[in-house]
Amino acid sequence: MVVKVYGADYACPKRVIVCLIEKEIEYETVFVDGFKGEHKQPEYLKLQPFGLLPVIQDGDYTLYESRAILRYYAEKYKNQGTDLLGKTIEERGLVEQWLEVEAQNFNPPIFSLVMNILVSPIMGTPSDPKVIEECEEKLGKVLDIYEDRLSKTKYLAGEFFSLADLSHLPFTHYLVGSMGKAYMVRDRKHVSAWWDDISSRPSWKKVVQIHPFPL
Amino acid sequence: MVVKVYGADYACPKRVIVCLIEKEIEYETVFVDGFKGEHKQPEYLKLQPFGLLPVIQDGDYTLYESRAILRYYAEKYKNQGTDLLGKTIEERGLVEQWLEVEAQNFNPPIFSLVMNILVSPIMGTPSDPKVIEECEEKLGKVLDIYEDRLSKTKYLAGEFFSLADLSHLPFTHYLVGSMGKAYMVRDRKHVSAWWDDISSRPSWKKVVQIHPFPL
Repeated sequence: MVVKVYGADYACPKRVIVCLIEKEIEYETVFVDGFKGEHKQPEYLKLQPFGLLPVIQDGDYTLYESRAILRYYAEKYKNQGTDLLGKTIEERGLVEQWLEVEAQNFNPPIFSLVMNILVSPIMGTPSDPKVIEECEEKLGKVLDIYEDRLSKTKYLAGEFFSLADLSHLPFTHYLVGSMGKAYMVRDRKHVSAWWDDISSRPSWKKVVQIHPFPL
Repeated sequence: MVVKVYGADYACPKRVIVCLIEKEIEYETVFVDGFKGEHKQPEYLKLQPFGLLPVIQDGDYTLYESRAILRYYAEKYKNQGTDLLGKTIEERGLVEQWLEVEAQNFNPPIFSLVMNILVSPIMGTPSDPKVIEECEEKLGKVLDIYEDRLSKTKYLAGEFFSLADLSHLPFTHYLVGSMGKAYMVRDRKHVSAWWDDISSRPSWKKVVQIHPFPL
């Protein structure tokens, strides 16, 4: 069964796509024009009532929330492709911890930076310099903690690449690229080496090549 | 091994405690005075570098982020106490989806309401009426989607109580209680019945009784 992924142009769906590639799962994409608000239309809301991207359809199984989809496929195909959950329940616990850190600590400031720096000019909505300054400071503090962690372990959850690292790819790609904030990664030696490592994986290079970012 | 839970007085640690009770796991609590900023002191930051509650210690295994801890114990003791993950990988996928909805859609506005309505007066910091109004509106829209979902299934992930429901207990307890916003639950028939069901579980009644909320 080929997995359908809605909205492949955007960052959160790319989190799912890079996971599917790592897990060697066949997929196809369904275009959703977020800039025209297609994700807020009744047809889409039947699939995802909150009007957010992505959604997947796998036969008659529908699932949304990118990190839930990651967990579903990482577990369902545990023994196919890259293992992204760790070998033991304790390792998986640490994967879950750092995946939550990404969702709760890293994502809020970087999402806000993306909205204010990249999305606002396109949508013609005002961007807020004070919010940008505050979020940059918050993100810097989070990355200081990552720097400390990554001075002790090669990846966030330990010595193995996992969902916790993978989940950082789409938004960090913006940070070091079109947002012009590469210094936040490059000024931190271990974060910088980690970024070079995870962003040079064939799976991510493929995502960037065949599903280029719109921003 | 008795699990040590840091900061049992606060909402996020209570998410962990109610899970431990459902899973019949012995625990003890370590007092952390959040109002005095003990969670920002060097000793605590060694356990949780972001300065957030809770942390658990289980022998020499340390874990933070409440929802990661829930997943760890629900999986480790899958066959002990209440099953909180569903019977199949597809059911677990839906548990993960609704647990993410709680974290990403429900929690941000309700957390902000708690900070502005309950915490600000105690800390002597200003509360923002505009933020309260906006968050109440956002939370109302989320609860409208819950109402629709709960008109079709008894619990969020399906016909079984799971981590997805459990994770809502501490902050919804504030909403219907000391925050004075019970109408947000009571005006929605299916959300109201769901709340009565999950909040009357012996596990939650025990949490409220032996670890009373400070607010």
